[in-house]
Amino acid sequence: MFITFEGIDGSGKSTHAGLLAEWLRARGHRVELLREPGATPLAEAIRQILLDATLRIDPVAELMLFCAARRQLVEDVIRPALAQGQVVISDRYADSTVAYQGYGRGLDLEMVERIIGYAIGSVVPHVTFVLDVDVATALQRRGVRQSRTTDRMEDAPEAFFERVRRGYLAIAAREPERVVVLDGIQSVEMIHSRVCAVVLERLRQIHRGALT
Amino acid sequence: MFITFEGIDGSGKSTHAGLLAEWLRARGHRVELLREPGATPLAEAIRQILLDATLRIDPVAELMLFCAARRQLVEDVIRPALAQGQVVISDRYADSTVAYQGYGRGLDLEMVERIIGYAIGSVVPHVTFVLDVDVATALQRRGVRQSRTTDRMEDAPEAFFERVRRGYLAIAAREPERVVVLDGIQSVEMIHSRVCAVVLERLRQIHRGALT
Repeated sequence: MFITFEGIDGSGKSTHAGLLAEWLRARGHRVELLREPGATPLAEAIRQILLDATLRIDPVAELMLFCAARRQLVEDVIRPALAQGQVVISDRYADSTVAYQGYGRGLDLEMVERIIGYAIGSVVPHVTFVLDVDVATALQRRGVRQSRTTDRMEDAPEAFFERVRRGYLAIAAREPERVVVLDGIQSVEMIHSRVCAVVLERLRQIHRGALT
Repeated sequence: MFITFEGIDGSGKSTHAGLLAEWLRARGHRVELLREPGATPLAEAIRQILLDATLRIDPVAELMLFCAARRQLVEDVIRPALAQGQVVISDRYADSTVAYQGYGRGLDLEMVERIIGYAIGSVVPHVTFVLDVDVATALQRRGVRQSRTTDRMEDAPEAFFERVRRGYLAIAAREPERVVVLDGIQSVEMIHSRVCAVVLERLRQIHRGALT
């Protein structure tokens, strides 16, 4: 089973990806917890480029860098882990690129989706959780973590994050079977229990599918 | 005017790109001589990744890295230089990716061309010289016999270069107006004088076009 967490920076997705991994491990599942972009030597090298605020990076080049990192992650980590029966949880995946580069940067959506589709092939998440929070709250949460340095991915104006948020909601509206939108303003405990309930139900569905 | 040199490694394209730049400068043209991938800070960073033999790089990820580097080069260097009336000469460009990743690595050609087209937009060369040499000669020129070089782009078997060579010839057959195939076995002087003759003729055509 492949599960992804999405949302604007400060939405709480990393927290919930980690909590779900712990919860599944406690129930005996083998879990691969990933962070995008990263998790392979190539993707970490690309991540360093993307985080380098001194480099000029055109939005189309940025799109292609994210897709290159993701391709390597799919081939070297996600596909093998799924083949071994592990649960893969990723903090960000393809929807981030649609939301950030497509909706946020305003690139041609059809082209963005075509390139992402070429990069990931058939490796589409079974469930995606979008943690939806208003931009003001997300920025405030990030402000609490003062030590965080500004980088390319997060150093952008409010209007940009508004477009990204609307992008996530558009993706969810288009794919209601896969994408579950959660109110990120609720308590960590409430969100976590809802995440666990959805995952448990999907695991049962997959198990039933395997038995029939 | 935008001129590119293409061919397998050891075909002599870098030599002829340099000689043409000198010749044009001597005739009073302002010339921007480029090497791909590279020529911008982003592209140089990507070049380091591509040359790192310790990194696993999937062919699709490789394609996207080349296209990211090229996009930045087009936006930051080629397009501005052409707008200022400079002659831009590039040692490799889009055809390299079609030949190496498409024909050489066997990626889906339509997808490869679509992604390259998205990266470069309307910035297509006015003339492309393909320096055609047989693979055995190219390998011999590079000093490679049975031993292997250490970088990813050149560390590949003869069959790979045969496919790349055939790829270049296929591109030339499809676009005879743009692509000029030169016999790379001829002397440097003979090839250079042919290159200059073609460029002179194209410059006259462009000049006539501008006057009418």
